[in-house]
Amino acid sequence: MKTLQLELGSRSYPIYLGEGILHNTELLRRHVRGQQVMIVSNSVVAKHYLELIKKAFTDRQCDVVLIPDGEAYKTLETLNTIFDALLKQQHHRNTTLIALGGGVVGDMTGFAAACYQRGVDFLQIPTTLLAQVDASVGGKTAVNHPLGKNMIGAFHQPRCVLIDTTTLATLSEREFRAGVAEIIKAALIQDSEFFTWLESNMPKLLEKNSSVLIEAIARACQIKIQIVSEDEKETNKRAWLNLGHTFGHALEQLSHYDGTLLHGEAVSIGMVLAADLSLRFGWLKAQDVERIRNILIAARLPVLFPNEVSYPQFLEVMLLDKKVNDKGLCFVLLKGIGQATLTASVTEEQLRTIMENNSVR
Amino acid sequence: MKTLQLELGSRSYPIYLGEGILHNTELLRRHVRGQQVMIVSNSVVAKHYLELIKKAFTDRQCDVVLIPDGEAYKTLETLNTIFDALLKQQHHRNTTLIALGGGVVGDMTGFAAACYQRGVDFLQIPTTLLAQVDASVGGKTAVNHPLGKNMIGAFHQPRCVLIDTTTLATLSEREFRAGVAEIIKAALIQDSEFFTWLESNMPKLLEKNSSVLIEAIARACQIKIQIVSEDEKETNKRAWLNLGHTFGHALEQLSHYDGTLLHGEAVSIGMVLAADLSLRFGWLKAQDVERIRNILIAARLPVLFPNEVSYPQFLEVMLLDKKVNDKGLCFVLLKGIGQATLTASVTEEQLRTIMENNSVR
Repeated sequence: MKTLQLELGSRSYPIYLGEGILHNTELLRRHVRGQQVMIVSNSVVAKHYLELIKKAFTDRQCDVVLIPDGEAYKTLETLNTIFDALLKQQHHRNTTLIALGGGVVGDMTGFAAACYQRGVDFLQIPTTLLAQVDASVGGKTAVNHPLGKNMIGAFHQPRCVLIDTTTLATLSEREFRAGVAEIIKAALIQDSEFFTWLESNMPKLLEKNSSVLIEAIARACQIKIQIVSEDEKETNKRAWLNLGHTFGHALEQLSHYDGTLLHGEAVSIGMVLAADLSLRFGWLKAQDVERIRNILIAARLPVLFPNEVSYPQFLEVMLLDKKVNDKGLCFVLLKGIGQATLTASVTEEQLRTIMENNSVR
Repeated sequence: MKTLQLELGSRSYPIYLGEGILHNTELLRRHVRGQQVMIVSNSVVAKHYLELIKKAFTDRQCDVVLIPDGEAYKTLETLNTIFDALLKQQHHRNTTLIALGGGVVGDMTGFAAACYQRGVDFLQIPTTLLAQVDASVGGKTAVNHPLGKNMIGAFHQPRCVLIDTTTLATLSEREFRAGVAEIIKAALIQDSEFFTWLESNMPKLLEKNSSVLIEAIARACQIKIQIVSEDEKETNKRAWLNLGHTFGHALEQLSHYDGTLLHGEAVSIGMVLAADLSLRFGWLKAQDVERIRNILIAARLPVLFPNEVSYPQFLEVMLLDKKVNDKGLCFVLLKGIGQATLTASVTEEQLRTIMENNSVR
């Protein structure tokens, strides 16, 4: 088992990573301080792993609440079902919530923990690759609002993150590849050596070769850990982690989170757009844009602007995002592979060009 | 104008207190950092003071959202109307929310500010005595849940608190006296000299004599400031501020927040019950219990257990509260006037006795 540590003063915590670590009862209990536990999961994940987790807490009050799966349910309404369960089962301020599932479960459980009785403990047990390499680390929690993704939330750090790679065996190939997109993102923003390593090891990664998989997750987490420890509340550098995400969020929103485009797939297309925009700024070389496109294709991720999304709608959403973020039309772009940077002052015309350049229309 | 300061490291802020300070445009603008302002208020308060506040922000984007008045509307649903307004008007992370109203407006605006885009600035402009001496200071924000008051919330400190005593002119006598209950509470928990001062000055306070009123608010705020600066997250001493509140919350809940019992009135009865219980523990002298009862009567506050609330129901709510709080049947009691203390291990029998002893049944 590998143990990484996110240093944030009194809010520091470990990230445990290994094969089969959910069978380690002592580890599951190590960061639970009170006598009550509430496991939050969805029915698909619960079927596979719920009993394993419950077994570690037979001598505590251990309750379960299942929430519906999918980004479309990441709402205040679903959040309230977690509060209902906590209050009906009389959970007090010393309770610990356990997020058992993917990014949606993690984001909602974390936000519920941030708000319940003004803040209780929670643990992250991410069971999708996407959540393991990105969402479960760093304390960003949120729900969506009809007018914007992740608009209602809190920074609330977990007490620990438990990443068991055997949970990926039950993940669909498509979900797995969506997680690979975030690993590629981590390499792109600040580790060119890792990017080269990924280029060589992509076939083994897609086969879920154990040592390659653990190495990839550990390195992606380490990049996130370093950035979050420098800028927990995203006043600056943490925004790098949004490479491809401004585009990606717009694409997701316009496909109504209906599953036609997974988050990681939207980010994949978003990274191609960001790379192309970086090229037009004269920052990225054409061969590096090709390397980025190629590694995403090697990971069997989409790299073309989807036919289903209209250009004008896309621009409209981007412009709203701009206003909501008060930073002008601001993007994370690349000055090279492994070198992210923030830029403002992108024009509508530039956006139109990169959309058209990366589309089959 | 008096300026008090709550010291909480990077979250420190001033509390400005005086007559007519809302006419001071520079003061209203001093702690607004961005170009956007969202005033949250209710229609009653807005009628009197909204234009005054808006006048200070004519050169900014200044929007308004009115929420329904009353504890019964302090819900996630109402909270969502604030998020709707923020997103529709495209408020970004640098926006400032302004809570203009009583405790309900303050609690909900603060919680909305805590969650919107994972945390934005807010100012408190409390317009009820209760909010001026208690709710607006200290950063506790929350909404209610059908199964418990203030169960969903956050600690989120405002950028400043602006207390203009002229706003009390439009407050009903009954609301005003409910605020006096919290002033008496502040004195009871840690300032016997202030309690004696209040005994002498109660008639002038009820007449809203300007200098007495400002002195009373300043001293009550000072007590709260000192306690919150020592224990922001209520791990210990801050619980003293709940003197009379465990009883009070149960009474409020059983009267369904329908206005038969204002928060301060419920706390008044709760303080009598706490004083009586303290007597039975041998901590408080009988004459001190009488002084407490007398000052509340002098403030024309209720001191008897309400006929409308049944004993068994009351006990049931108290026991639930106990479980939710994981501290046994724990109360803030008094070891003397000006000396609060926390106790566990109160029995059901003791509760029954004090209910009966303080009732006309």
